[in-house]
Amino acid sequence: MTDNARGRFITLEGGEGAGKSTQIARLKGWLESRGRTVVATREPGGSPGAEMVRKLLVEGPVERWDGVTEALLHFAARRDHLRSTVWPALEKGAWVISDRFADSTVAYQGNGHGLDLATLGNLYEVAVGDFRPDLTLILDVPIDTGLARAAARRGTETRYESLPRAFHERVKAGFLEIARREPKRCAVIDAAQDIDTIAAAISRTVGDRLGT
Amino acid sequence: MTDNARGRFITLEGGEGAGKSTQIARLKGWLESRGRTVVATREPGGSPGAEMVRKLLVEGPVERWDGVTEALLHFAARRDHLRSTVWPALEKGAWVISDRFADSTVAYQGNGHGLDLATLGNLYEVAVGDFRPDLTLILDVPIDTGLARAAARRGTETRYESLPRAFHERVKAGFLEIARREPKRCAVIDAAQDIDTIAAAISRTVGDRLGT
Repeated sequence: MTDNARGRFITLEGGEGAGKSTQIARLKGWLESRGRTVVATREPGGSPGAEMVRKLLVEGPVERWDGVTEALLHFAARRDHLRSTVWPALEKGAWVISDRFADSTVAYQGNGHGLDLATLGNLYEVAVGDFRPDLTLILDVPIDTGLARAAARRGTETRYESLPRAFHERVKAGFLEIARREPKRCAVIDAAQDIDTIAAAISRTVGDRLGT
Repeated sequence: MTDNARGRFITLEGGEGAGKSTQIARLKGWLESRGRTVVATREPGGSPGAEMVRKLLVEGPVERWDGVTEALLHFAARRDHLRSTVWPALEKGAWVISDRFADSTVAYQGNGHGLDLATLGNLYEVAVGDFRPDLTLILDVPIDTGLARAAARRGTETRYESLPRAFHERVKAGFLEIARREPKRCAVIDAAQDIDTIAAAISRTVGDRLGT
């Protein structure tokens, strides 16, 4: 299979309530209208094995795991997600859009919980190897807006949302730092705007960066 | 707390049906008869969080996870086990005996599934740091004896036992290799003998190596 026939891997990143799932549905529709086969998936999860690990990560008391344990669980789920869902779909030529990927582990466990970036780099190497997203869209939103949106759809998956405001500030700063460090892979999207404006910014960015 | 007041960490390793749990009960009783406080624990598991991860590892179809994913899950469970159970008990002066520890990951995921030792070393460093068992007893038993014993107590945790014979041979060789590499930490116990003879060999080794 030539590289042209391989699909593209797009990840959406951002803090709580950044609007990622809404925008993924819009981006999927837009790409499909242009003839692409699209697989929308999410992390942690996105495959039967990884969804089992997800339950351990997003439910229960916030002190259940420390940052290192969380990072190991995230990378275990990520490995399974890649092997079972993402890599096979890309091989078949589908475009894959993932709600969160490894940048979330850097922002949450690294910037948020203070785990050092070299450790996270080691885990990335072990679990993912040299595979990278073709494009990462970082949906940036003020903390208050994000937490208010997240509270409105509150279910059982509240383990991260219940962390203090300072944690969410470090996460937000972490994502912006990643975008500055890897400008060719990442694009920051102002996600405080209305849904249609954000969707337009995203499809414009995808078109510019990857062609469609 | 002085180092003298800290407890000792003893791990029992070996393939399926090596008789580890029987011998741990005997060793616990022997150490207690000599006035030690003893915590008997196991991996994967040994803490509420790690037991949740254990369920993902020991149940279900054998092809559920690849070697890398398994190793990540094992080290996540191990980290939780250490933080929640092992380290606090050692700090309080208890002796901790664990049914399996990191050598099992090397033998099963490394020798058994072909994961390279450098990767496993990286994961050890991330999850465990420079902490090591004070003594590791490797219970060595012929494959047929071990699998027959394991079959006799077969429950739902059959994911490893159902692997081919060649896998179990690589695991056995892996454990013996660890013992050769780290003779000061490890002792090989002939576990094909009867229960009392094995128990006597174990208590003699613990007495010689650690004092009691």
